[in-house]
Amino acid sequence: MAAKPPCSGPLATLPFAMADTPQPPTALPTAADVDAAANRLAGVALRTPLISSPVLDAAIGARVFLKAETLQRTGSFKFRGAYNKLSTIPADQRSGGVVAYSSGNHAQGVAAAAQVLGMPAVIVMPSDAPRSKRERTAALGAEVVLYDREREDRTAIASGIAAKRGAVVVPPFDDPMVIAGQGTVGREIIEDLTALGLAPDVVIVGASGGGLIAGIALAIKARAPGAKFYSAEPEGFDDTARSFRSGKREANARMSSICDALMSNTPGAITFEINRRLVGEGISASDAEVGRAVAFAFRELKLVVEPGGAIGLAALLAGKLDVKGKVVVGVLSGGNVDAELFHQLVA
Amino acid sequence: MAAKPPCSGPLATLPFAMADTPQPPTALPTAADVDAAANRLAGVALRTPLISSPVLDAAIGARVFLKAETLQRTGSFKFRGAYNKLSTIPADQRSGGVVAYSSGNHAQGVAAAAQVLGMPAVIVMPSDAPRSKRERTAALGAEVVLYDREREDRTAIASGIAAKRGAVVVPPFDDPMVIAGQGTVGREIIEDLTALGLAPDVVIVGASGGGLIAGIALAIKARAPGAKFYSAEPEGFDDTARSFRSGKREANARMSSICDALMSNTPGAITFEINRRLVGEGISASDAEVGRAVAFAFRELKLVVEPGGAIGLAALLAGKLDVKGKVVVGVLSGGNVDAELFHQLVA
Repeated sequence: MAAKPPCSGPLATLPFAMADTPQPPTALPTAADVDAAANRLAGVALRTPLISSPVLDAAIGARVFLKAETLQRTGSFKFRGAYNKLSTIPADQRSGGVVAYSSGNHAQGVAAAAQVLGMPAVIVMPSDAPRSKRERTAALGAEVVLYDREREDRTAIASGIAAKRGAVVVPPFDDPMVIAGQGTVGREIIEDLTALGLAPDVVIVGASGGGLIAGIALAIKARAPGAKFYSAEPEGFDDTARSFRSGKREANARMSSICDALMSNTPGAITFEINRRLVGEGISASDAEVGRAVAFAFRELKLVVEPGGAIGLAALLAGKLDVKGKVVVGVLSGGNVDAELFHQLVA
Repeated sequence: MAAKPPCSGPLATLPFAMADTPQPPTALPTAADVDAAANRLAGVALRTPLISSPVLDAAIGARVFLKAETLQRTGSFKFRGAYNKLSTIPADQRSGGVVAYSSGNHAQGVAAAAQVLGMPAVIVMPSDAPRSKRERTAALGAEVVLYDREREDRTAIASGIAAKRGAVVVPPFDDPMVIAGQGTVGREIIEDLTALGLAPDVVIVGASGGGLIAGIALAIKARAPGAKFYSAEPEGFDDTARSFRSGKREANARMSSICDALMSNTPGAITFEINRRLVGEGISASDAEVGRAVAFAFRELKLVVEPGGAIGLAALLAGKLDVKGKVVVGVLSGGNVDAELFHQLVA
């Protein structure tokens, strides 16, 4: 085992190895990496509010706080990880720009971060991604390359572009600096709760590749080790929950979900290594339950939340966990939803 | 002129008399009354976030902050004034409950405040108020009495009910304690801006009866006397702006507006006395401009804002004021909008 790294967090001294696909040890991000990310993001990312609502508390029977990352730049938390990652690219490697593959929110996050930093960006997006997400990515100055989600490999396409242009690939979740950037969401949550004299009992975060929940768990567990974490996923896309149960990274059978932001096929290698230890348990919600959560957010909270961003709220409202009387934290992770789908869900 | 009162604010020593309808002097609320209201509301009203957005700043060409009272209890600022007013009703007068007349948001604010304080509430509402507002008022435990806005006098109906039941009438705006309660919006704005090291150059607040802008002006002018205030109103319902110009309270010609929350016929006596001195100038926006602001809030800010709640944002986005490079504050005053109308505006 290597010498103890200078920045220690809950995972910093753990060896890193995948149960199913042995790989060389990789440095896992730590709570200190989240702190460093917070310094980079200060004055660039928005500090989003931690929302509470008596109606929500009554509906759940708990003291509920929702981190409104819907109000973040580009309408989701993804700007945080992207900007943190891009900020760590050495100056002499920036001219080739960046390449990212994404169903939408990561695309906008990377495009916006590249724009702020003056770097060119190519985004590889599935051709069935919501129109609003494609258009907004292009509006942020990125070049959009579409691919067929059923037949083509986005990772290979992105790698090809990167090799040709000398660009850096920005992975959507399985990267220490991306995870650390997303972790600033958790850092702000714990700071705001601490200011209220509270500690979280339960934290529920949506999982696709698992970068957001991994980062949040790093940040919160470092200051509130007693917090119990759950991943939330769409039914049928519960690869994270099944991976927790089997102890190795499981894949989803291909199918569609209302939650276009949560359709990663399998947990990341780095994210799963963090999440299996700090999270360890997952719940899921149906499309109908997600729709009801989007409608609840519209009607009662006056917030625009996209289906994937409402997965944790959906699980809470559907009573998937017994959280009575507890301090519960959820994350509204994104709000990029087309007007037509939004209307179908809230009408 | 009376001796200087113990709690002095920008208006505390001014005599109160209407230019058009002479009345006995009435105590005007002061910034100290707003401070007292803030103490009563602490832990009961939500402290709503002051939202910023790079996209919004770019659209306006200024540094813009929006106070999201859409996220307040009952979905608008009205809970603040109602709760402050009800809290000052002596214990021996509470059993008869309260009566209020309102096109919707004040109704919910009074109903919720009465529910928190355990008082019965009757709400007199126009029969053409949005269904969501009627239903939500009833859901808060209030008795709803409908009236015809074209043919009946809501004030008389409310007074009749109050006399019969021994209830206290809670005016929607023209009451010192209601104004002081709404002023806590301004108190939070100036606290949050001060924490950012900023002072407001321009403040734009929607005006119907004028209670919200009067309260906010009291609170902000006490700490940032250089802030320039503007009322914002729907075209055709610009009674406040016309009253500023003529120096006396003007009335609107009856017509309809997309802003159902901003259809008061004339400024209040107390509110106008405050606003003529602290505001003094008003702008307006068309229904189409308001609709574009609601759509902008959906698409770019991920916030659900009702038309009346978006009037100030509408005026800003439409370029009604030259605010280039300034620190500009707006208030998103409410988010209670039916799903169908919302879809029409954002689609």
